[in-house]
Amino acid sequence: MVDIKPEQTQEGNNNDHLVQSDDPEHPANLIPELCRKFYSLGWVTGTGGGTSIRRGEHIFIAPSGVQKELIKPNEIFVLSYPTPKYPPSARKYIRKPSALNPSACTPLFLAAFDRGAGCCIHTHSQWAVMVTLLVEREKGKSGCFEISNIEQIKGIPRGKGKGMLGFFDTLKIPIIENTAFEEDLTESLEKAMEEYPDTYAVLVRRHGIYVWGDTPAKAKTQCESLDYLFQLAVQMHAHSLPWVVNESA
Amino acid sequence: MVDIKPEQTQEGNNNDHLVQSDDPEHPANLIPELCRKFYSLGWVTGTGGGTSIRRGEHIFIAPSGVQKELIKPNEIFVLSYPTPKYPPSARKYIRKPSALNPSACTPLFLAAFDRGAGCCIHTHSQWAVMVTLLVEREKGKSGCFEISNIEQIKGIPRGKGKGMLGFFDTLKIPIIENTAFEEDLTESLEKAMEEYPDTYAVLVRRHGIYVWGDTPAKAKTQCESLDYLFQLAVQMHAHSLPWVVNESA
Amino acid sequence: MVDIKPEQTQEGNNNDHLVQSDDPEHPANLIPELCRKFYSLGWVTGTGGGTSIRRGEHIFIAPSGVQKELIKPNEIFVLSYPTPKYPPSARKYIRKPSALNPSACTPLFLAAFDRGAGCCIHTHSQWAVMVTLLVEREKGKSGCFEISNIEQIKGIPRGKGKGMLGFFDTLKIPIIENTAFEEDLTESLEKAMEEYPDTYAVLVRRHGIYVWGDTPAKAKTQCESLDYLFQLAVQMHAHSLPWVVNESA
Amino acid sequence: MVDIKPEQTQEGNNNDHLVQSDDPEHPANLIPELCRKFYSLGWVTGTGGGTSIRRGEHIFIAPSGVQKELIKPNEIFVLSYPTPKYPPSARKYIRKPSALNPSACTPLFLAAFDRGAGCCIHTHSQWAVMVTLLVEREKGKSGCFEISNIEQIKGIPRGKGKGMLGFFDTLKIPIIENTAFEEDLTESLEKAMEEYPDTYAVLVRRHGIYVWGDTPAKAKTQCESLDYLFQLAVQMHAHSLPWVVNESA
Repeated sequence: MVDIKPEQTQEGNNNDHLVQSDDPEHPANLIPELCRKFYSLGWVTGTGGGTSIRRGEHIFIAPSGVQKELIKPNEIFVLSYPTPKYPPSARKYIRKPSALNPSACTPLFLAAFDRGAGCCIHTHSQWAVMVTLLVEREKGKSGCFEISNIEQIKGIPRGKGKGMLGFFDTLKIPIIENTAFEEDLTESLEKAMEEYPDTYAVLVRRHGIYVWGDTPAKAKTQCESLDYLFQLAVQMHAHSLPWVVNESA
Repeated sequence: MVDIKPEQTQEGNNNDHLVQSDDPEHPANLIPELCRKFYSLGWVTGTGGGTSIRRGEHIFIAPSGVQKELIKPNEIFVLSYPTPKYPPSARKYIRKPSALNPSACTPLFLAAFDRGAGCCIHTHSQWAVMVTLLVEREKGKSGCFEISNIEQIKGIPRGKGKGMLGFFDTLKIPIIENTAFEEDLTESLEKAMEEYPDTYAVLVRRHGIYVWGDTPAKAKTQCESLDYLFQLAVQMHAHSLPWVVNESA
Repeated sequence: MVDIKPEQTQEGNNNDHLVQSDDPEHPANLIPELCRKFYSLGWVTGTGGGTSIRRGEHIFIAPSGVQKELIKPNEIFVLSYPTPKYPPSARKYIRKPSALNPSACTPLFLAAFDRGAGCCIHTHSQWAVMVTLLVEREKGKSGCFEISNIEQIKGIPRGKGKGMLGFFDTLKIPIIENTAFEEDLTESLEKAMEEYPDTYAVLVRRHGIYVWGDTPAKAKTQCESLDYLFQLAVQMHAHSLPWVVNESA
Repeated sequence: MVDIKPEQTQEGNNNDHLVQSDDPEHPANLIPELCRKFYSLGWVTGTGGGTSIRRGEHIFIAPSGVQKELIKPNEIFVLSYPTPKYPPSARKYIRKPSALNPSACTPLFLAAFDRGAGCCIHTHSQWAVMVTLLVEREKGKSGCFEISNIEQIKGIPRGKGKGMLGFFDTLKIPIIENTAFEEDLTESLEKAMEEYPDTYAVLVRRHGIYVWGDTPAKAKTQCESLDYLFQLAVQMHAHSLPWVVNESA
């Protein structure tokens, strides 16, 4: 993971053309639209959470510490991300809106892009936080979230190029411990990615979740499916219903 | 049930005129509008669920695997469905948007249309899933969902041409077991329709619900009434309140 | 209570001018707007609930059995309601949209207007239904809903011309038993109004609530305050917190 | 705290220009926009709650007793608030919409402005009310709300000019007892501000919360973060999960 130093890499030319487009699918338009949706879903309340999209050699990132439902295209950061793999020095901010800070999640987003993601979403969903707390009490800090035999599991991929999970499969989402500073999560996030090479998401205890996907649409719908499963799991737990079915139907 | 093979039946002429209309009540306009509502109700999160409308000899179906709140009229599939009953070979896709897949629910929708429905809705509502789990624990896999003495029951028909259920009636919704592949639900769905000839809905364990109605408005409002009852039933169960009243007032 | 027979009283002239106005506060415009809000609050799901406004000699009523979030001004019924009190025969529909049915709640709305209300709202709110169930289990069928020492109580009037309830007051809302037919609630609703002459609302067991107010704005905000209190009461009950504080602070 | 007597201080000139601006960030435009959001969040249901913004020598205040989602710029009150500190007599209403009442929260808002706030928000959030009830039962009336080791805590400042709280910090929000009249809360609010000089919020038992911030954006996002924490805390309590972690990770 390269250490991004935005304050040293800003260009005199701020490359405003990179965030100006009439195409609603352009990342500079799509990130604000997604963040408005995520706000209404309760995922990015109070400036929490973030979203990043990769398009070719550019990574577009929502700013930090702002009201996520009010982001405008000209507030989007752009990071160069050359492919095939360039030396780490090639990763630098090529657009940095004045008076805004880049997201502290940036190194975590990059870890997802290094695995081939096209979009990475970070939420503070309360359902995600609740399942990390319930798992901790049941299984201790080594546990991961597991659920099976729920149709919505089919909304989550089995792994890169392996199709989607089936109804009878057990979905497993690793949980890492939170740290004082968000960027310090990077090492354990990457370790979880190595231990769970097929996962498209990592939960962060008492914090939220990182979800990624091959495209923005896939990242968003996978994030919705996971949140659905977390909400259902909390409800099931309240009614003493187990998350994993041992017999197969 | 005819086996629909869309990839073999697509016409060179894609019949785009079938999904072009200024009438907001036209199925190609109404399905996207309904799906937007269902998304905001949490029924079709993460590409889940689906909707289909029959108008005369045509069945209009939302595509599979897409963000349901973003469907556009030109993404709607059209299936020919001649009446009076033609040989099964008459059922074929006469419009198939490129790069999209038809809904895996199609055979299940057709089972409802074969019973005279004008619209069929499939949701992954968490309340529907929760009642299937609670019923399974109480009554085992043979059980159906039952509730009585709640005003909203009057929003559900007593059966085709029989008027609406009354307040003191017991609403019964059959529950079928989920399968690995959605199309494999067809047989048990049709069996449930035979056992419960007056039902306008079938719950699918750990999956969701199929609801149909004589018109799109009736399918939608009946689906809302059922979801209201499932949500109330989960809340009642959390407070140890029984779903069925034995005495009549 | 006069027995309204709309099928006998419809005029040849349908008085469309009574529901045509550019004023957003006109009842024919305000009822659709209120119903859209009530739908998004979950109060009138699946055609449930209703709303009526009195303006001078006219009572405007939402139709029955329709999607409440889609009502249009020309779908509003108008009933003549002369003042000062005319013989009951003076109460008749002077506008009746074809192909729509008047609300079964009409006699209940009239009971509120006879007490001087300017607007009456009927909802199927699940929180209202839940408190009627919880009260029944605790106190039997004779009980009423009571809560004290919650700030939102100050949103409910102490009685006609008596100002608002105070924080330390105990709000009491009578509960009547549901009947098979909505119009048959009228007698017990009027009886509850006599026993609780200061109430602006009556709960209906396993059904919902009727709330009225001097103006549409008051009826709506009082209905919101009550729903807030019912929701809070259900939540309090789930945490074994009592609804009424016996000591005064 | 000066005693504001609006009825004695209204000017013949109503200073309408103070609430007329094309700038969406102008307080007279921003307060209605914020109140619409707060309504949809359930914070100001049934005329409850309020919002006030200070800009230079003027304080803009939402009216009392109105539907908060419908406020218009010309319904905003303006109070002169000269700086540096003038004699109390300098605080007077310089704009008072006819037929509207100033907010009973005004003295409480002023207490926040006297501490340097740029915006103060008052909500009746049910989550805020619930935590005051749960704290009272656990710790009695002397208790304050405490939570630690949740990422969203980082959305709350450590104190004026001290940066934000950390993940491992324990957030403490004082709770004051409610009074019959809102203005009578002022003394205990100011006392709580003295005892908790770093707090940006005070809970009111069985009533709601006052949250302030250096700017409208900060007050709003801090209010969202607190509400997120209260909602999570209620959910945690329902699952017997403690709010404060004693060990540090």
